Amino acid sequence: MEIFYVLLILLVITRAFGELAVRFQQPALVGELLSGIVLGAVIKLSPPSFPIMNSLTENEVFTAITDLGIFFLMLMAGLEMHPKEIAEKSKGALSIAIGGLIIPLLVGFLIGWFYLPQSDYRLAQILFIGTALAITAVPVAVKVLMDLGKLDSTAGKMIVSAAIVDDILGLLLLAVLTAVVRTGQMPHWTGLLQLSGQILLFLVIVTGIGLFILPRLERVVGKSVIEEFEFSALLAVAFGFAVLAEAFHMHFILGAFAAGLFFTKRTMDDQVFKGVQDRVSGITTGFLAPVFFASIGLHLDIAAFVNIPLFLLMLIVAAVGCKLVGAGAIARWVGLSGKDSLIVGIGMSGRGAVELIIADIALRAGLFSQPDPTPPIVANLFSAIVIMAVVTTLITPIGLRFIMSRKP
Amino acid sequence: MEIFYVLLILLVITRAFGELAVRFQQPALVGELLSGIVLGAVIKLSPPSFPIMNSLTENEVFTAITDLGIFFLMLMAGLEMHPKEIAEKSKGALSIAIGGLIIPLLVGFLIGWFYLPQSDYRLAQILFIGTALAITAVPVAVKVLMDLGKLDSTAGKMIVSAAIVDDILGLLLLAVLTAVVRTGQMPHWTGLLQLSGQILLFLVIVTGIGLFILPRLERVVGKSVIEEFEFSALLAVAFGFAVLAEAFHMHFILGAFAAGLFFTKRTMDDQVFKGVQDRVSGITTGFLAPVFFASIGLHLDIAAFVNIPLFLLMLIVAAVGCKLVGAGAIARWVGLSGKDSLIVGIGMSGRGAVELIIADIALRAGLFSQPDPTPPIVANLFSAIVIMAVVTTLITPIGLRFIMSRKP
Repeated sequence: MEIFYVLLILLVITRAFGELAVRFQQPALVGELLSGIVLGAVIKLSPPSFPIMNSLTENEVFTAITDLGIFFLMLMAGLEMHPKEIAEKSKGALSIAIGGLIIPLLVGFLIGWFYLPQSDYRLAQILFIGTALAITAVPVAVKVLMDLGKLDSTAGKMIVSAAIVDDILGLLLLAVLTAVVRTGQMPHWTGLLQLSGQILLFLVIVTGIGLFILPRLERVVGKSVIEEFEFSALLAVAFGFAVLAEAFHMHFILGAFAAGLFFTKRTMDDQVFKGVQDRVSGITTGFLAPVFFASIGLHLDIAAFVNIPLFLLMLIVAAVGCKLVGAGAIARWVGLSGKDSLIVGIGMSGRGAVELIIADIALRAGLFSQPDPTPPIVANLFSAIVIMAVVTTLITPIGLRFIMSRKP
Repeated sequence: MEIFYVLLILLVITRAFGELAVRFQQPALVGELLSGIVLGAVIKLSPPSFPIMNSLTENEVFTAITDLGIFFLMLMAGLEMHPKEIAEKSKGALSIAIGGLIIPLLVGFLIGWFYLPQSDYRLAQILFIGTALAITAVPVAVKVLMDLGKLDSTAGKMIVSAAIVDDILGLLLLAVLTAVVRTGQMPHWTGLLQLSGQILLFLVIVTGIGLFILPRLERVVGKSVIEEFEFSALLAVAFGFAVLAEAFHMHFILGAFAAGLFFTKRTMDDQVFKGVQDRVSGITTGFLAPVFFASIGLHLDIAAFVNIPLFLLMLIVAAVGCKLVGAGAIARWVGLSGKDSLIVGIGMSGRGAVELIIADIALRAGLFSQPDPTPPIVANLFSAIVIMAVVTTLITPIGLRFIMSRKP
């Protein structure tokens, strides 16, 4: 079974790089991504020397394992969020979230509009750039704020609430993107209406199950006598929601995320809830997520630095600039101090895992293979977005630390 | 992704059946296996009605997931054992273990010798029956004794220690079996010597790493700053040992088991160790093991009941009888009371997970497809062994409860 060999290599390298990253005051995610990029670069130097690793990205089993990684990442993200808290803190945060979404989205559309060549996928590619710029990484933001001891500050709470709203809206954008990729064109008004109807219906069903059926289910599960039944129940709900999402032509990550969101402490013992969370964290952070991050690095071609340096630079500047303007300026407008507004803007710049998941979905959908022959910008678009995600994830902690050390 | 649909179905059915089984005072394993058997029977009634499920056993991704299930089952089995305790309690237990292994092995050889037709795989098939009869399920024994409050009794300790030794010896038998399947014949003296040398070398390397390198590694891991590093480290060691086992032409389960065995509390915080164990238990008991047990049930053809009823009956009688004589009589001989000896004999009759893993390995190796055309006994051998495993696993708790309720 070569899969054990592959998992051994990837797990050792990613976690070692992750550990190094944290020692250099960076999120572990950054190290894990870089390890994949380095590994990919080494393999590309001499593919025949790495007979199993060089064909990994086409391996069906490996792809399924990274799919499970994505599934668990989204499940964990949902688990760590508290819908109630979001609703309570959402007054100022909502406008920041919308500003931090609309501005990057529009700028992304503009960039795509000007630079992308005509093709069947042009519209999907434009939408992809917009979505990629609009995303904010909740875990990156939370981790960095926690490390700096600022999670409970005004700016900290704003960042987290706004980032969560942006993440959810970003996933809905992904639903539109998935539809566009499927049909090859922006849905007409009727199609857009149908799509909105589907999304709405999915949300209603999932919310209905989440609010009214899950609490009853949890009570039943609480009376179970076999081991690990709670964890199995969470997984079953998440698999069920994932299947439901796909039945509605949406991506399965929406289902996994929703399952995590509605799995709360309501009827559960604190310790039981903590136990389930620990298990999800172990399988995700300790096993499947690093493997997924490494696979992203393996897909990436650092040639993007050479092939489209200016476009890449523009993308990175736009990624940070749009969040500074879209989220930061609105934060100032709703009454935060100048320094806090800057903190909000920088804090929301990190992209992280959801960005990589969406880029991966677009890559698998063949979004970067049209038109034929593929011009450099399109051929390198995936790598450019991944590099942008890594760079913005690097900038967030460095920038925040710098601003916070200065006087108001 | 149909994989989420498959995992949803299997997880819900297996865990529901597992819960039912425990409510009927049976191990959860029994219910999980039965659920797969029932599901398989339903699918066979009308295969076209279940387009995804009916081709599941040939699905590469599903096979990889069941492989991971086997891997984690063995890792967990190793984790739950304490090599030191085994060594301390091994005085009387060793002779019980050897008796409980040799007698069933010989009887298995005889059954195979008389009933199996000539073919390239005859020898491997004979060895398989012997190994299948020799196995004792440690988790089944432990679970049942725990439920009955007899884990700490003399007979209880004897059963567990002897079962562990039998499990380890059974895995070594599997190494021989794997070699025989690979070469198609029993190795000659030179080949047997080479095989023993390989096994010995593997054991020496693994023990060396386990005793001298792992404690150092654990100390390094203890200083790590990233989350879930301990769990990742255990997985990395297990993947490494699995790769090593395969490099020595042995089955990967030996590596996973060894990794669990050497991962102890030595240099670790109690809480950290418990956390890692919880994560392995969650992913195994709560997720992958039920899926694996269901897949065993799906492979099984209950036609064995109709096609080879007498052979099946003989197999079951031999399975229980050999352990009664092999382990029970020796227990009496080393000084246990008559009742306690009976408890030892019945307690070691359950086969459980390792048996199913070995049957699965033999099935995948094509052991039951020779000669061509395949006579009923060979064609039904896999199902017969699985049914035997289920029946003996059912008999153990019922039998023990019955004996213990009687006066000495």
